[in-house]
Amino acid sequence: MKQPVRLALLGCGTVGAEVVRLLHEQSADLAARIGAPLEIAGIAVRRIGRDRGELPIDPALFTTDALGLIKRDDVDVVVEVVGGIEPARSWLVEALRAGKSVVTANKALLAEDGGALHDAAAEGDGDLYYEASVAGAIPLLRPLRESLHGDRITRVTGIVNGTTNFILSAMHATGAGFAEALEEATELGYAEADPTADVEGFDAAAKAAILASLAFHTRVGAADVHREGITEVTAADVASAKAMGCTIKLLCIAARGTDGQGREAVSVRVHPAMIPLTHPLASVGDAFNAVFVEADAAGQLMFYGRGAGGAPTASAVLGDVVAVARNRLAGVRSASESAYAALPVRPMGEALTRYHISLDVADRPGVLEAVAGVFARHDVSIATVRQGPADGGKGDAVLVIVTHVAPDAALAATVGELRGLDIVRSVASVLRVEGGL
Amino acid sequence: MKQPVRLALLGCGTVGAEVVRLLHEQSADLAARIGAPLEIAGIAVRRIGRDRGELPIDPALFTTDALGLIKRDDVDVVVEVVGGIEPARSWLVEALRAGKSVVTANKALLAEDGGALHDAAAEGDGDLYYEASVAGAIPLLRPLRESLHGDRITRVTGIVNGTTNFILSAMHATGAGFAEALEEATELGYAEADPTADVEGFDAAAKAAILASLAFHTRVGAADVHREGITEVTAADVASAKAMGCTIKLLCIAARGTDGQGREAVSVRVHPAMIPLTHPLASVGDAFNAVFVEADAAGQLMFYGRGAGGAPTASAVLGDVVAVARNRLAGVRSASESAYAALPVRPMGEALTRYHISLDVADRPGVLEAVAGVFARHDVSIATVRQGPADGGKGDAVLVIVTHVAPDAALAATVGELRGLDIVRSVASVLRVEGGL
Repeated sequence: MKQPVRLALLGCGTVGAEVVRLLHEQSADLAARIGAPLEIAGIAVRRIGRDRGELPIDPALFTTDALGLIKRDDVDVVVEVVGGIEPARSWLVEALRAGKSVVTANKALLAEDGGALHDAAAEGDGDLYYEASVAGAIPLLRPLRESLHGDRITRVTGIVNGTTNFILSAMHATGAGFAEALEEATELGYAEADPTADVEGFDAAAKAAILASLAFHTRVGAADVHREGITEVTAADVASAKAMGCTIKLLCIAARGTDGQGREAVSVRVHPAMIPLTHPLASVGDAFNAVFVEADAAGQLMFYGRGAGGAPTASAVLGDVVAVARNRLAGVRSASESAYAALPVRPMGEALTRYHISLDVADRPGVLEAVAGVFARHDVSIATVRQGPADGGKGDAVLVIVTHVAPDAALAATVGELRGLDIVRSVASVLRVEGGL
Repeated sequence: MKQPVRLALLGCGTVGAEVVRLLHEQSADLAARIGAPLEIAGIAVRRIGRDRGELPIDPALFTTDALGLIKRDDVDVVVEVVGGIEPARSWLVEALRAGKSVVTANKALLAEDGGALHDAAAEGDGDLYYEASVAGAIPLLRPLRESLHGDRITRVTGIVNGTTNFILSAMHATGAGFAEALEEATELGYAEADPTADVEGFDAAAKAAILASLAFHTRVGAADVHREGITEVTAADVASAKAMGCTIKLLCIAARGTDGQGREAVSVRVHPAMIPLTHPLASVGDAFNAVFVEADAAGQLMFYGRGAGGAPTASAVLGDVVAVARNRLAGVRSASESAYAALPVRPMGEALTRYHISLDVADRPGVLEAVAGVFARHDVSIATVRQGPADGGKGDAVLVIVTHVAPDAALAATVGELRGLDIVRSVASVLRVEGGL
């Protein structure tokens, strides 16, 4: 058995504590799989005295000097589970430049400035692994960055945020509105006290950027991702979706396509969308995550599992630790960032989407013609239309229209013009539609 | 750009032709991902003149001298898509010993004598990759052999044979019997002219051995796998399952447990089983594959996709080719076989299973007591029991019993004794139950 591989752990919250626990419990197996034991050289925390329960670790290993720990010669691998942009970025850049291998779960940092980390990894000739940053324990990034490298990925569609999936699942199951479902999620611990990052889609957008970068061999950052949260999804929207045999999910979508000049490009977006109940993603309930991948030769693939939580995230972190530790022992480095394609990212207006639009209209001759005329003027083709009496009565009617695929800007402009029509009393619901229908 | 990485392709059937096509179509992307172009040095086939449609390849590359091709100094990577034990084994052992990297889709060979290949790979210090051997395009082996190496896998449950899944899905949907559903599968091209390997579970058993080996760091061969096919699944069995809110799937199950002496052991088996319709595997229809993995920290994971077909299999082969080509350029080798745990494989009799048993019994006092007594004598605990009038009348009754988990031998002995009871007119259906109920 060789000399130990020594880890610096940055952060010891829920995930960090679980990493410590698993390193202890699985130490014999991990050593056998790596060919050398793993040892914790130190754990950087903000406050040393904090109660962390019973951790199987020497308390002398805790330090508040993260940078000092990182720079130590006897540290081989730096594991970061602190989160946030700074000081995590400075720490990891420092570690990578110094030739350490880095394992991180920090999706926000990777989406904000992954380039800086990849560049530092190339400079120090070390490994940068981040399986835990997207979809927790689901082995997803490795398949994208390795297994599917003989194929051409055309589209990635994912449910990558457990909080919003729990809320939307509850709204679908009970008919509750957003506020009520959020309250339940908070009570049950599925939503944080400040749920902004989840419900406004920031968390999903960071993951979308990471997935798109890997799938399309292109650097995609959080700023490239069109983002809409779920705060404006209403009980009426959910009811509309149900009436269509659908449910509403917050989807992250990264798709290959062409720009206005016919050149290859990608679009990356996060927004709520209706998907048919028969779609594999529709049955992903509660706080589970799933990612649906479409590739030219492989066809349709789906990866499903727990997207968050201490143990599942720690499982992904440790899988990466085993890989980078093995590489260090072999004196090698895994494939570095693959961003050779450098495809342009299209603005949302050019993304091809479909809309489901529910209108309250006056019930009189010529209404359908006028409405249809608006769609035609924006070159938007209608797939299905259904007219019925309005619930409220008053001589109004409800018009439910599902379009074919069109540029998002044309669909948005169509809705804008419909809002201005005299005969349209109100636009009751507008939702994008994904996954067939 | 570096010197080309040169491939010897053994076999040019459906998968081989697709590999040739993708190598041609994706050549620029593959070269960018690898850092060097891929070139085909030669293609070994049985008959050179055969019509292979329009392949984008110089016909002079075809040869009938596989061994000569493998031994050529300008061949770096050997890709085997011939199948079968011999001559594939001799060819691959020769290639690996000579230091070539090998990519194979040959599940039968890996399950029969994977050890010989792994040993040869260690001898030649080359890579042995076989992602395409299980579940076609689904990136599954790499997650098992890398991503989950920081975790402890407790169970793998998979639908890994598309033909039988198509047949059982059809039986569930239409109520057809096995023979009728097989005929349909054959007509539609989902079953081969001789369907034995599929319907008798040989194909699934080979895959089960490969999955168990990776999941439990233990050499498991086809001979270690308990195997039952689906030829004896009747329309009545399917109806029984439906009545329980279940469906029948041919499952491969690899589970960690303890042997009679309380030592850690594994059991590996392939057989039809009832699973609840709410289980994620229940909705895997037609010829799709899916594998459900349970691990201590990661929790439940599922991988889903196309398990067979030229393009999906070729996608998996090429993903492996990219990986081994990169390794060759870097002068490194991936982690070798991990079989350090060397857990014993339990016989089927010791595997813990649950049975669903449907009995036609005489409808008179004391029957339930007598039947329950048989279960008690074999120390089998009954979970649910339902008694109702038999369809056929004649004063008989139907007794449907679902057991708790017990050793398979005890359950089998229970059924054996029930068959001998006077009051039991017939044992109408016996099925194992998996995935809760």
